[in-house]
Amino acid sequence: MSFLYIERVDGAIATHDKTALVAELQALLPDLQVLHASEDVRPYECDGLSAYRASPMLVALPDRVEQVQALLKFASARQIPVVARGAGTGLSGGAMPLEKGILLVMARFNRILDIDVEASTARVQPGVRNLAISQAAAPHNLYYAPDPSSQIACSIGGNVAENAGGVHCLKYGLTVHNILKLDVLTIDGERLTLGSEALDCPGFDLLALFTGSEGMLGIVVEVTVKLLTKPQSAKVLLASFDDVEKAGRAVGQIIGAGVIPGGLEMMDNLAIRAAEDFIKAGYPVNAQAILLCEVDGAESDVREDCDRVDALLRAAGATDIRVAKDEAERQRFWAGRKNAFPAVGRISPDYYCMDGTIPRRQLPRVLKSIARLSAEFGLRVANVFHAGDGNMHPLILFDANAPGEMDRAEAIGARILELCVEVGGSITGEHGVGREKINQMCAQFNSDELTLFHSLKAAFDPAGLLNPGKNIPTLHRCAEFGSMHIHHGAVPFPELERF
Amino acid sequence: MSFLYIERVDGAIATHDKTALVAELQALLPDLQVLHASEDVRPYECDGLSAYRASPMLVALPDRVEQVQALLKFASARQIPVVARGAGTGLSGGAMPLEKGILLVMARFNRILDIDVEASTARVQPGVRNLAISQAAAPHNLYYAPDPSSQIACSIGGNVAENAGGVHCLKYGLTVHNILKLDVLTIDGERLTLGSEALDCPGFDLLALFTGSEGMLGIVVEVTVKLLTKPQSAKVLLASFDDVEKAGRAVGQIIGAGVIPGGLEMMDNLAIRAAEDFIKAGYPVNAQAILLCEVDGAESDVREDCDRVDALLRAAGATDIRVAKDEAERQRFWAGRKNAFPAVGRISPDYYCMDGTIPRRQLPRVLKSIARLSAEFGLRVANVFHAGDGNMHPLILFDANAPGEMDRAEAIGARILELCVEVGGSITGEHGVGREKINQMCAQFNSDELTLFHSLKAAFDPAGLLNPGKNIPTLHRCAEFGSMHIHHGAVPFPELERF
Repeated sequence: MSFLYIERVDGAIATHDKTALVAELQALLPDLQVLHASEDVRPYECDGLSAYRASPMLVALPDRVEQVQALLKFASARQIPVVARGAGTGLSGGAMPLEKGILLVMARFNRILDIDVEASTARVQPGVRNLAISQAAAPHNLYYAPDPSSQIACSIGGNVAENAGGVHCLKYGLTVHNILKLDVLTIDGERLTLGSEALDCPGFDLLALFTGSEGMLGIVVEVTVKLLTKPQSAKVLLASFDDVEKAGRAVGQIIGAGVIPGGLEMMDNLAIRAAEDFIKAGYPVNAQAILLCEVDGAESDVREDCDRVDALLRAAGATDIRVAKDEAERQRFWAGRKNAFPAVGRISPDYYCMDGTIPRRQLPRVLKSIARLSAEFGLRVANVFHAGDGNMHPLILFDANAPGEMDRAEAIGARILELCVEVGGSITGEHGVGREKINQMCAQFNSDELTLFHSLKAAFDPAGLLNPGKNIPTLHRCAEFGSMHIHHGAVPFPELERF
Repeated sequence: MSFLYIERVDGAIATHDKTALVAELQALLPDLQVLHASEDVRPYECDGLSAYRASPMLVALPDRVEQVQALLKFASARQIPVVARGAGTGLSGGAMPLEKGILLVMARFNRILDIDVEASTARVQPGVRNLAISQAAAPHNLYYAPDPSSQIACSIGGNVAENAGGVHCLKYGLTVHNILKLDVLTIDGERLTLGSEALDCPGFDLLALFTGSEGMLGIVVEVTVKLLTKPQSAKVLLASFDDVEKAGRAVGQIIGAGVIPGGLEMMDNLAIRAAEDFIKAGYPVNAQAILLCEVDGAESDVREDCDRVDALLRAAGATDIRVAKDEAERQRFWAGRKNAFPAVGRISPDYYCMDGTIPRRQLPRVLKSIARLSAEFGLRVANVFHAGDGNMHPLILFDANAPGEMDRAEAIGARILELCVEVGGSITGEHGVGREKINQMCAQFNSDELTLFHSLKAAFDPAGLLNPGKNIPTLHRCAEFGSMHIHHGAVPFPELERF
């Protein structure tokens, strides 16, 4: 592995004379927009995770692939780190800039290049918004399935970088399952094509390797996505439970029975009350938990699935089940869920949104453990999440102005993520690792696995210039962090031992 | 990149004293079954592609993971190449042994370790046969979706190595889409876990990188697969066409209309007649092409889809459409397709089965080009293939005893694969690259892409001991082969230029 590369992740980045660099860059690429005054770069100090901030040395806003190629060659020759940014909606600090680095903003690559109706694919630039793809495909009765909550703003390039999910990924998969081909630039400005329009591609699966790599392997300049035909019909059921664990068990029973809902979401009492206060969705405020289960497909199929889910929910102990009687009510049911985060924001000065994934069968156990941790740390935790795929989003409520609360919020968050690893899950579902969860990677992976990640990174970027310090921790960092790899089941986890 | 590694792929493998090695190995692992006499290793000279043969130095048949670990450490310390083999049904020579290497046969790892009905997963050893998983899951109304034609014999470890597909992969995906977790050993005998039982896994997507890597990155010792609920109902339509290209166009129109059939297969007249002579499936022997389209799912859904497919087929110019009237006729329709390869074997002394994938919209164009090549080379070509996902299997008929015919068969095969690349497809659909198509990889990828593959290989296996000489050609080989990367659309392809 390259010595340079290891230096870079450990933070040894050379300091450049900014004024001279900007002048050189402008001479090389007079058409490229570059921001460097401190007031101009301020809007780029963080992404959607505002707790992690830095002021980039300079911000480049190219609008042609040739500019990006030249910029990468420029940075590579001078050993300047490059952090790519899409729409800046990421929630793990993956696009946080470096003070000694270039922030490469891909937002201007916002053209839909082609929609091929017969092949059901779209070829788009990386700055195209997620929702804009579905809007452009709508006249052909097609849409792009992954739908992160930020879909109105987030860009497809960022979706690829973080392997984004959404409410519908239970049935339709993550970003990696919905893209066919990527055109990327290496740190040397070489253009590579990963994947193909055909079913399979020989050689190693670089398309999947690149997806979710958080800007560490190269820069995406074009994405070919799969489009799906819109389902004929969709119905949503709202089931109330007097016990959180019963709701957790119902999730496994629905999927175990062979129904794959379009969406299967869970909210606990704290989240239900916050959402109902805010949105008036018609939620049962006394329920300890609700499940929202949407079934979609052909008309007749939806009717059948709806009956099966109803029976399964009753058998699992639901105290009340309502099927949205019309499209307006269906939208209202979803509006409560989709606005649950801002709703929780109304009942607490601050909140910290976690993102971890667990095997479905562990839902009841983990919900119980989170309640126990909440009591232990003296902080309220609201649970609103993609229950069907075990992707939890505990919202930790705190007040940053109350002494010690922020530290306690971070501590309970870390414990929850480690709990996810302990039960066979992972420290991220769809938000990525970025800067936020780099320490928890030490719990998720052992030193052999981390070394392998670094070797792969070095194969693409031997000098470690692309997004250094994110996603993959050094072994040195893990040793400092102190908590190395949790062997599944081997080391008893204190939260679980008490029950 | 390691110098040693590059030497190895170029064929510079040291010669060991076999007798001494066997004695050492038996002293180290007295329980390990080792074959080395020439009559004992003969059955292992080739996999399903008998054209490529070699006699392995020794064959190891471990039955415990610890033996495999010790064996790998043994080989690694002595720089002996290791080729892994599952059931030996592969069709591209991926498991062809090396005369100076160890053939590591994983067939004895044939236990199903666990079926988790709630999670719909099975944890199995790599030597478990593909069909055995579905058989074990059947009492729970579950099955494992990928179904290569060899499913009665091929093992799941080999399926992972080749990213195997099958008739149903159009709707249900390839192996990579149907596995959750792999336990693998590196060349140093370290055990790594790739993927997880949860929805997503942070870090780089090693699970996907490993799947389809043809034994070049490590040895699979455990696989966790997804299981699906069996569809309630399935119907198959048999449509006749008086023109191959019309049938090709119909394929795109069905998928373009949003129907995703469980299977969508095509056969041309030569294949139809051969199959009908052999199986009496009730095929129309005068049709120029038939499509077999199976729709599966809930009862009512299947009825609806069946009507839609019928209308689409008629609009596309089908001259006759029959729906299998009962399960017996459905099985008969499929029996003709599934036995098409041996049926073609009855009408020609030899045949060479190709495997390439193209975007669906290119089907009519490529079928026309194959007919032209067939005439040019004076060899019959039968087309039997997974039309829905553009995965072609042209069968080139020849007589190995007729002077020059085998060379002509290889030449037309290579031209067909290059044609697949030229239209935006790939040189393999589900059979892998192995030894057979290593030269065509030079057409599929440019030198930057091949260099990247070698760097990734070196990250896992710096000394290049795992399955050297397969899958990824050296740049040196490509230079010798003479035909470098075909840029899609940039270099006109002679077969296409004539039309």
